[in-house]
Amino acid sequence: MKKPWDGRFEKDTNELVEQFSESVSFDKRLYKHDIRAGVAHAEMLARCGLISESELVQIREGLRDIEKEIESGELELQVPLEDVHMNVEAALIARIGDAGRKLHTARSRNDQVACDLRLWCRDAIRDCTALLTNVQRALVEKAEEHRELIAPGFTHLQHAQPVLLAHALLAYVEMLERDRQRLADCLVRVNVSPLGACALAGTSLPTDPQSTARELGFDACFANSMDAVSDRDFAVELAFDLCLIAMHLSRLAEEWLIWSTPEFDFVDLDESFCTGSSIMPQKKNADVLELLRGKCGRLYGDLMALLTALKGLPLAYNRDMQEDKEPLFNAADTVQACLSVAAELVRTTAFKEENLTRACSEGHMDATALAEYLVGRGVPFREAHEAVGRAVRAAAADGAGLAELSLEQMREFSELIAEDVYRALGAQNCVENYRSHGSSSPAEVGRQLDYWKERLPR
Amino acid sequence: MKKPWDGRFEKDTNELVEQFSESVSFDKRLYKHDIRAGVAHAEMLARCGLISESELVQIREGLRDIEKEIESGELELQVPLEDVHMNVEAALIARIGDAGRKLHTARSRNDQVACDLRLWCRDAIRDCTALLTNVQRALVEKAEEHRELIAPGFTHLQHAQPVLLAHALLAYVEMLERDRQRLADCLVRVNVSPLGACALAGTSLPTDPQSTARELGFDACFANSMDAVSDRDFAVELAFDLCLIAMHLSRLAEEWLIWSTPEFDFVDLDESFCTGSSIMPQKKNADVLELLRGKCGRLYGDLMALLTALKGLPLAYNRDMQEDKEPLFNAADTVQACLSVAAELVRTTAFKEENLTRACSEGHMDATALAEYLVGRGVPFREAHEAVGRAVRAAAADGAGLAELSLEQMREFSELIAEDVYRALGAQNCVENYRSHGSSSPAEVGRQLDYWKERLPR
Amino acid sequence: MKKPWDGRFEKDTNELVEQFSESVSFDKRLYKHDIRAGVAHAEMLARCGLISESELVQIREGLRDIEKEIESGELELQVPLEDVHMNVEAALIARIGDAGRKLHTARSRNDQVACDLRLWCRDAIRDCTALLTNVQRALVEKAEEHRELIAPGFTHLQHAQPVLLAHALLAYVEMLERDRQRLADCLVRVNVSPLGACALAGTSLPTDPQSTARELGFDACFANSMDAVSDRDFAVELAFDLCLIAMHLSRLAEEWLIWSTPEFDFVDLDESFCTGSSIMPQKKNADVLELLRGKCGRLYGDLMALLTALKGLPLAYNRDMQEDKEPLFNAADTVQACLSVAAELVRTTAFKEENLTRACSEGHMDATALAEYLVGRGVPFREAHEAVGRAVRAAAADGAGLAELSLEQMREFSELIAEDVYRALGAQNCVENYRSHGSSSPAEVGRQLDYWKERLPR
Amino acid sequence: MKKPWDGRFEKDTNELVEQFSESVSFDKRLYKHDIRAGVAHAEMLARCGLISESELVQIREGLRDIEKEIESGELELQVPLEDVHMNVEAALIARIGDAGRKLHTARSRNDQVACDLRLWCRDAIRDCTALLTNVQRALVEKAEEHRELIAPGFTHLQHAQPVLLAHALLAYVEMLERDRQRLADCLVRVNVSPLGACALAGTSLPTDPQSTARELGFDACFANSMDAVSDRDFAVELAFDLCLIAMHLSRLAEEWLIWSTPEFDFVDLDESFCTGSSIMPQKKNADVLELLRGKCGRLYGDLMALLTALKGLPLAYNRDMQEDKEPLFNAADTVQACLSVAAELVRTTAFKEENLTRACSEGHMDATALAEYLVGRGVPFREAHEAVGRAVRAAAADGAGLAELSLEQMREFSELIAEDVYRALGAQNCVENYRSHGSSSPAEVGRQLDYWKERLPR
Repeated sequence: MKKPWDGRFEKDTNELVEQFSESVSFDKRLYKHDIRAGVAHAEMLARCGLISESELVQIREGLRDIEKEIESGELELQVPLEDVHMNVEAALIARIGDAGRKLHTARSRNDQVACDLRLWCRDAIRDCTALLTNVQRALVEKAEEHRELIAPGFTHLQHAQPVLLAHALLAYVEMLERDRQRLADCLVRVNVSPLGACALAGTSLPTDPQSTARELGFDACFANSMDAVSDRDFAVELAFDLCLIAMHLSRLAEEWLIWSTPEFDFVDLDESFCTGSSIMPQKKNADVLELLRGKCGRLYGDLMALLTALKGLPLAYNRDMQEDKEPLFNAADTVQACLSVAAELVRTTAFKEENLTRACSEGHMDATALAEYLVGRGVPFREAHEAVGRAVRAAAADGAGLAELSLEQMREFSELIAEDVYRALGAQNCVENYRSHGSSSPAEVGRQLDYWKERLPR
Repeated sequence: MKKPWDGRFEKDTNELVEQFSESVSFDKRLYKHDIRAGVAHAEMLARCGLISESELVQIREGLRDIEKEIESGELELQVPLEDVHMNVEAALIARIGDAGRKLHTARSRNDQVACDLRLWCRDAIRDCTALLTNVQRALVEKAEEHRELIAPGFTHLQHAQPVLLAHALLAYVEMLERDRQRLADCLVRVNVSPLGACALAGTSLPTDPQSTARELGFDACFANSMDAVSDRDFAVELAFDLCLIAMHLSRLAEEWLIWSTPEFDFVDLDESFCTGSSIMPQKKNADVLELLRGKCGRLYGDLMALLTALKGLPLAYNRDMQEDKEPLFNAADTVQACLSVAAELVRTTAFKEENLTRACSEGHMDATALAEYLVGRGVPFREAHEAVGRAVRAAAADGAGLAELSLEQMREFSELIAEDVYRALGAQNCVENYRSHGSSSPAEVGRQLDYWKERLPR
Repeated sequence: MKKPWDGRFEKDTNELVEQFSESVSFDKRLYKHDIRAGVAHAEMLARCGLISESELVQIREGLRDIEKEIESGELELQVPLEDVHMNVEAALIARIGDAGRKLHTARSRNDQVACDLRLWCRDAIRDCTALLTNVQRALVEKAEEHRELIAPGFTHLQHAQPVLLAHALLAYVEMLERDRQRLADCLVRVNVSPLGACALAGTSLPTDPQSTARELGFDACFANSMDAVSDRDFAVELAFDLCLIAMHLSRLAEEWLIWSTPEFDFVDLDESFCTGSSIMPQKKNADVLELLRGKCGRLYGDLMALLTALKGLPLAYNRDMQEDKEPLFNAADTVQACLSVAAELVRTTAFKEENLTRACSEGHMDATALAEYLVGRGVPFREAHEAVGRAVRAAAADGAGLAELSLEQMREFSELIAEDVYRALGAQNCVENYRSHGSSSPAEVGRQLDYWKERLPR
Repeated sequence: MKKPWDGRFEKDTNELVEQFSESVSFDKRLYKHDIRAGVAHAEMLARCGLISESELVQIREGLRDIEKEIESGELELQVPLEDVHMNVEAALIARIGDAGRKLHTARSRNDQVACDLRLWCRDAIRDCTALLTNVQRALVEKAEEHRELIAPGFTHLQHAQPVLLAHALLAYVEMLERDRQRLADCLVRVNVSPLGACALAGTSLPTDPQSTARELGFDACFANSMDAVSDRDFAVELAFDLCLIAMHLSRLAEEWLIWSTPEFDFVDLDESFCTGSSIMPQKKNADVLELLRGKCGRLYGDLMALLTALKGLPLAYNRDMQEDKEPLFNAADTVQACLSVAAELVRTTAFKEENLTRACSEGHMDATALAEYLVGRGVPFREAHEAVGRAVRAAAADGAGLAELSLEQMREFSELIAEDVYRALGAQNCVENYRSHGSSSPAEVGRQLDYWKERLPR
């Protein structure tokens, strides 16, 4: 098949090389972006007098037809034409002839591919952001549903202090909010037009890259053409932001996997989100959670692939950069699938109130409250901590909770303990007594809930 | 050695475990941050009536003395006390007794370590930002110095089109500018106080975390205490931002390494930045460039270490998080060293004008200009491209440049070529004819230079 | 669609979950392995009396028909059946009824998928090994072709000492030989049958996993059923071995990219292995080399994906392990494509003898030889090194080579230098004077060449 | 400070560069290896007549004195001398003069550092292997201790089938055994001498690298000098092998962390292996397990650092390779610490028999046994699986175990069920009925235990 550079070459491309270096099998998904940018480029060429109005009309209509034909499958992109860009251009020339041969004026694949990829990233950021919001909403709804339910709060996977379940759910909302912010920050660097940088040096033809940037909805136009064609920071940054989303989902998944064991039995996953076993008839497995956790690896791998490929690349464009697309596409597709399924998973998961409540009586989770009680009576915290430590040891030896100790027993550890100590003990009292900003107190958690309900309207 | 939790435990910590789990050998560098946060915490406790004014005075003075003694080496931190936090607290108690025992009121190591690390990250971001600016300045100065020098512009490591050397240098300034922006974005997420979240749930004591946040110069206070103690996103994000800096430096290093080979001989590194060989007497090696390139691996590794450690951690604090510090410290130290040396390297490196100029006559870099010349005469670009391709093939066969072809020879490829074609050919003409926004034209590069000189004042 | 576990579940699988958790879109490529293992399993069941001979015949024929139909595209695998395993089993039951329902006796998907994947890895190792040998052969042929050509040997990308080009090419043969050894070592751990471990605990039915192992050509049978179903070490190890192959190719690619610049001009890549530019008519780009270098990132990413997914997985099988296949397939496909193209690239690349020879006179590469000359005259090496250092400085100041200094000039640096010094200087003399084991001397390189020609017969 | 290449250079090394490029701060730990290799090299020089016997004596004694002085701290290595190699050589020259100046004859830092690092890797492999064996022994002892204890076997973190606890513990022994094998395979590639390759090309002096290889206990001598100095595959391979050890430990750690929650309460970690909380008086945290899990990240990071640094390095030695040591040292130190602490942890951990036994009655873990019972009566497995699935659903609705269903109830699901079904149900029966190779049957587990007790003698 004819290549654009046939004038220069005597030999045809080796077939193995064609297969090895083609990108159309994966960059074809950029066809809408390529055509959109092609139309904008043609409009600029017309504005600058580099093509005529009638040529513009031909190009615009040609490209739109091609878009429809690719969409419908009528036009099949071909490997010997390497990539989506050359496929679209070749189809255009086949259709409209000389006007088509003018489209690549003051344009190189170097700035073209960067432009298409940036447009694609912009869409991906928008989609991920919406999906993040949807998971946040699901978490907020679930928190609202269990507004008063107390759960054991864990540190080191050991019972630490009682918390409101809603508080724990909102912690994930915070994580995902940072993910949304990072994507927004990334968008500022993504949304810069490289179109018009040409191969690397710009052009001697009268062009107006800033107008193309505006037409394509970019917030800015490149400042330095060499940088414009060799920059893939935006792609790596997006891949990193997606990694953190996947990491956050892996944390939720791990927690809920543990909570769905028969030993914990805190959550009941909907059957429609579980699978069975091919051999063990009784199994109900939380495969979705395991995949949410496991797919984190894929994201980390995609990031590492991109970072490695860019290491040590001299200016300006190098073909190694073609390796940017597959990891990035994979990362975005995976995160979008994870977020979609996570939202429904959260919505369909039931919390087992009774079991959570029962668990709250295990593990002397009111020990810190007792120490704070002593602090309220003037005992230095370190001393209070030690006294309560001894009390816990004694209670544990009896298999008792702190609230089950008699006042007399209590007073062995500190004479300052009085009858009102029982209003400090037990999970319910603990939670009700919390009062600090951002704490697990009903008021503070309620305030957070209200904030998110307003921030994340349906 | 006595542990704070001795009340609860019967046995001493196994010695192997003490060695395995200690962090003081590396977190001791947080001592200033720990003490600063300790003072702010004590002031809050006093404001809230949890300690007296005189206790505050004792604590404040005690902590400041401890700071001085650690600085001077008088006070040695001890491994059995695990970390910098417990070392400082133990030293304080040893000094001032009961007032010291009150400092840990409404504070946990969980929020304390997060607070210290965030303060440290804030400093690291500030330092890296200043060092980035310094490298940018060095590049701008070097660009200014060679304002009119033309160099071969490369794509695929092949001669592409002539560019101004200043243009290439400013491309790196753009990269580093994005690095600065990313750090600024990261700072917004770093600069949030976790202090007051306590272990994970807040406290029943009357505290005011928002005032501590203000005192410590944080822009915001945590919203959710469970998130506050289990969030390390800020650390990973910083590590990632540092990765991209290292990646950018690896690109510059690679380019200049190639440029400093005897075959290229474009740059002359100052002897004071080179080393010799233990066996080959003639060697002058650009070790600094190689290390700038190689240290990229270390950064990628640090990022991967952090990402991996955080995968699948349930709420809230888990000891795995202790693994955040060493990679982060290593990443920041490495990048700071790289930036420091890079700035001086840029400043002391000489460009060999004659060799760059000679290289510009190689590789038919004016072919695109010739195609654009034809476009200017109405030839569709694709047709022009092919005609010029044939011209290049013919010239190459003769070992000639395009400008060395006679007009007659030229016109074999297109009849539209006229005498004025020679004003389009040759590197000097090419550069002078560039006119597009952000291109390598003297005017555009001059504009960029002026912009950076103003943006990056000495 | 009916699932095997429908007896246990009341609800159907959520459609989003079906899409999210399916693996058939990528594990379908295991169909031959699945069917081969299925036949071997059925034969064992028959031998052990768990199915009848006629049932075995039905199963065997059924599976073979299914294999053909999948191959021809007649049978399309379906996403609601999750994976290749359930697709094959369902197709078998649809065809032969009850006999098909017996195939999964004493088998779980857990041991089945591990078995299929190990069979696949075995094939991949065999294929990669053959492709490695092919690249080695191409390098040996190229070395043989240029048996006496001298090239500059580089360290730190600076001229170091002259070497035979064949010597440099054989260095890559050594790298690839280690890759072959690593694959062979990996095969020992890959080629262990997990079939018969069932879900995790084995079975109460009378089975004979060791005979299945033999039938399938495994070298050993699993020792511990819990380990057998939860082990993916073999997959990660293979991915790692593939990483090192990719890393080696990236080294060759980088070197040849530099050698194919107009400044070096040491190699001439065949046009059929190059591509042109969409905008710059003169370009001849070594895209294949750039992709060989860049694809290294993909391999590192695949490894990291696998390592991350396995971190912290408790016994025994977890669904996260499904994430093993895509990175592994991608890694093997990529490396195989790289090796295929690399072999042809090596074969079609020409070395430019004149340029290599000319380059040998640059950079005082005979300085070490001069130092060794002095050592031969009794000068301690460190002293010799310093004297020659001064000689180089003097020669460099004159723009001269060492051999161009007069004997008088030479003797300024050491009085021990005599007329015979000129037999030590110059690239040709250097190479001829090498005599140590494994060195770049014609004899030693010849010996290496002969070794490889014998070891790697066509 | 005087550098060996001062003859060639006019300027001193920039101080920033000295700090940036020094390696002595971390490669000083190679001093014993450097000195050992130095002595062997000197002996070879003497054998080959390149130094006299008396010079050899001086060198040997000088080096041994230096070794002692470094060991005692008397001799402090200095940063301006860059690395351990130049420090040792400079100290030798300071001591013995001209004989010392001869030591570097026919040796370069390129082959020297590769040699030292290989010797170090050999030691690290030996140490790690011994530590692995020790952990294996601890696991075998623990398995022996609980030879008959039945535990729930998990897949997907759900109850799957009952297993012997010993079986689960031996699964980790299998993992670690593969780690030992991988290290042994790696050793073959590590234990090859590069000494004598000199800078990259060998030497014109009469040397005998093969004898040095023998003296230093290497199994082989390098074949190609260019490969010998530029190969770091052995270092990356070792780092990878260490990654898999860390990954295995992370799996054990995760499992035991979950098992040590109050909800599971299967294991009781010794207090001496736990730590408390600075704020919560009741906490007993399994920090050691968390660190074993978290340190996995560090290992993955070290591997990635090495892989990245080596990507795209042309022949032969490049300074980037200096970046090999810190990640490798960190990886080996970390894994050795992890293995040391893991062995003691295993030995001191108690399993709570009662809780494990009680857990075995949860989750219908005998469902597969019931299906196999039906298979024994001629029911096709798929049909049996479905029937049991329905039985499980019915039993679960009643909150009952399968063995608690009456025969009548049972026969609703299959008429083939008879009175003897109760000998198939319940964890104890399940385990006793296992009979397949490698299964969790007492006989098979006993056989495995005996095997390991013999293979891993105290």
